[in-house]
Amino acid sequence: MKKIYSIAAAVMICGLISAQPGRAPQVEPLPEGFKPASTNTFISQYPGVNPQTRQAIFRVVAPGAKTVQLQLSGTHDMKKDEKGVWWYTTDPLVVGFHYYAIAIDSVPVMDRGSKAYFGSNWESSGIEIPEGPEGDYYRFNKNIPHGQIRSIQYWSEVNGLERHVNVYVPAGYEKDTKSKYPVLYLVHGWGENEDGWSVQGHMANIMDGLIASGKAVPMIVVMPSGDIQTNSDVREAKGNITDIFVKDLIPFIDKTFRTYTDRESRAMAGLSRGGMQTTMTVFSNMDKFAWMGTFSGFFMGRQGGETPSVETAFNGVFKDPAAFDKQINLLFISTGTEERNPKEQVESLKAHGIKNIVFHESQGTAHEWLTWRRALNDFAPRLFK
Amino acid sequence: MKKIYSIAAAVMICGLISAQPGRAPQVEPLPEGFKPASTNTFISQYPGVNPQTRQAIFRVVAPGAKTVQLQLSGTHDMKKDEKGVWWYTTDPLVVGFHYYAIAIDSVPVMDRGSKAYFGSNWESSGIEIPEGPEGDYYRFNKNIPHGQIRSIQYWSEVNGLERHVNVYVPAGYEKDTKSKYPVLYLVHGWGENEDGWSVQGHMANIMDGLIASGKAVPMIVVMPSGDIQTNSDVREAKGNITDIFVKDLIPFIDKTFRTYTDRESRAMAGLSRGGMQTTMTVFSNMDKFAWMGTFSGFFMGRQGGETPSVETAFNGVFKDPAAFDKQINLLFISTGTEERNPKEQVESLKAHGIKNIVFHESQGTAHEWLTWRRALNDFAPRLFK
Repeated sequence: MKKIYSIAAAVMICGLISAQPGRAPQVEPLPEGFKPASTNTFISQYPGVNPQTRQAIFRVVAPGAKTVQLQLSGTHDMKKDEKGVWWYTTDPLVVGFHYYAIAIDSVPVMDRGSKAYFGSNWESSGIEIPEGPEGDYYRFNKNIPHGQIRSIQYWSEVNGLERHVNVYVPAGYEKDTKSKYPVLYLVHGWGENEDGWSVQGHMANIMDGLIASGKAVPMIVVMPSGDIQTNSDVREAKGNITDIFVKDLIPFIDKTFRTYTDRESRAMAGLSRGGMQTTMTVFSNMDKFAWMGTFSGFFMGRQGGETPSVETAFNGVFKDPAAFDKQINLLFISTGTEERNPKEQVESLKAHGIKNIVFHESQGTAHEWLTWRRALNDFAPRLFK
Repeated sequence: MKKIYSIAAAVMICGLISAQPGRAPQVEPLPEGFKPASTNTFISQYPGVNPQTRQAIFRVVAPGAKTVQLQLSGTHDMKKDEKGVWWYTTDPLVVGFHYYAIAIDSVPVMDRGSKAYFGSNWESSGIEIPEGPEGDYYRFNKNIPHGQIRSIQYWSEVNGLERHVNVYVPAGYEKDTKSKYPVLYLVHGWGENEDGWSVQGHMANIMDGLIASGKAVPMIVVMPSGDIQTNSDVREAKGNITDIFVKDLIPFIDKTFRTYTDRESRAMAGLSRGGMQTTMTVFSNMDKFAWMGTFSGFFMGRQGGETPSVETAFNGVFKDPAAFDKQINLLFISTGTEERNPKEQVESLKAHGIKNIVFHESQGTAHEWLTWRRALNDFAPRLFK
């Protein structure tokens, strides 16, 4: 049987290779201690990572280029060998997920060894510098039940366009068709898209683990796009994010899934710009949400040059601390220690008398996905209890 | 309210831009008659397509490059303007989806205007040359109910790894929790992955339309990976595709979804290599499948240099036509007219007496996605009836 297919396969594969660009060539073996990055396409050996030293090695075939650079925490000149292959081995990198680009004669492009990760509004390269066992919470665990991520197109009247949303349903949702679930709306940041939480963030692995261990209650997690214009089509996109969420998305979710629809069963959180969209949406719809989180996205801001004040920020939502605590069961604010830190603002809110506030810092990480995986892992267990 | 957020947003966005490569610059307006390709990232004006002339215009910012070429149905030199921007306008292109690459100083890379489409085992650029109303069947239709595509990780004992599978469930699956459904297993081709059918193929729009119009019966469509090694991890992947499907995937699907589990309610189809995997899997598991389709993937092949023969092909499965027809309700074979055509083989099977065979040709298209969208649209209505 095998023989028949292998001949036909060879014919077909040759046909495909000539018709499409990009066949993977044979490559030099990785140096000792290095393995292919988990963020590579499945056949790519490079870039490689060394889990012990946290170094990464990059390889670009570009015999015709004058210069090739790696753009990853700065710009680094790669070095050409006699075969026209360019190389660079990094210093130890911070653990977690980092975007990067390759500049060929100063044109930044995607490294073809990497899977595509949508960031900064283009399909970018990414590399994961693995953590040890402390990163197990965001890895696939074959010994526990798994939820599903559902990819759905729905029509938004406010937006005047179809919109894409990813919805995580917990393990058991499928079988136990009587149960209802609370809902967390979880938003990405600027330049990324609604796939960010499931792809870069590994949110399904995180939620599967929290729910299986009993740390978090089973919940539905809705991951919408935070952009108004979500396609390149010439049709005009209308509306604003809060209206799209409140008038179209929430009713669609409550109609489509078995949800609890009271405010005590609805949370919203987001990272970076999504954190701002969370404060914007929740603070103007306190009848619809009782839990909230902003990951690397909390800024009380300044109005007309005045010093930020807990009294006036967000149209005075914090003015009466007891009233705030009565409405919001949790205001979770998080940050990486290596980025702009809202610690002082959090302290001022606590000093003002807000009690339902939790502050989380990710040690040693910046405005990046490891910060947000850690935030979700700390945040989700606090919801709906 | 707006003012507070716009200042904070500006601060945050600047932080992001400096931390990540790839901000979209202001660009020249598209020539008259052109609009952004639907395959672009949502902020990209270029490449543009002219729906009337079926031309495409490409733009690459590469002031430091010596040569820039477009690789799309051949290699085309792009022309640099005084600002270091390179341009190329194509002749009229065939409608449908085409992969392409940009070669910067002979290094083929992804065009940053395009979304990433996994093809030829790397993240490739793609461009859709739109059809007129005849392409409506694969476009989103806001006036009909929509199914969901579910992204699931499951453990394969045969493979020794977790595997990713996309599962389309039809509109109504969620609400009508008593109904059971037949299942179509639908496989991608070499160099692509399990997202191909939903992303490049728009299978959800096609199935939604066929089911809403009553042309196809509501069914579950399972889209697995056709590769053994599906990650860049160093863990060893084991097994073969037929075993992974039959021993792990089918039981997992039947355990997880409300499926009919008899052979009359199970179909398998695939494109290119996936078509070969279909013949390989179905012909060695006739107790499990009663319907099958091979899109641009049917080859009776040659054994040891003999002339292909309907008697000996696939271990003699066609030898007794009546016995074959009794087991297989449908053998659907399709092709594009501009690729290797199995017409003669189909004729020989018909002449031999096989009745349950349907042959479908996509006019004017080659080994590409429009061929396969058309095939699915013709194939799915024939199933489970």
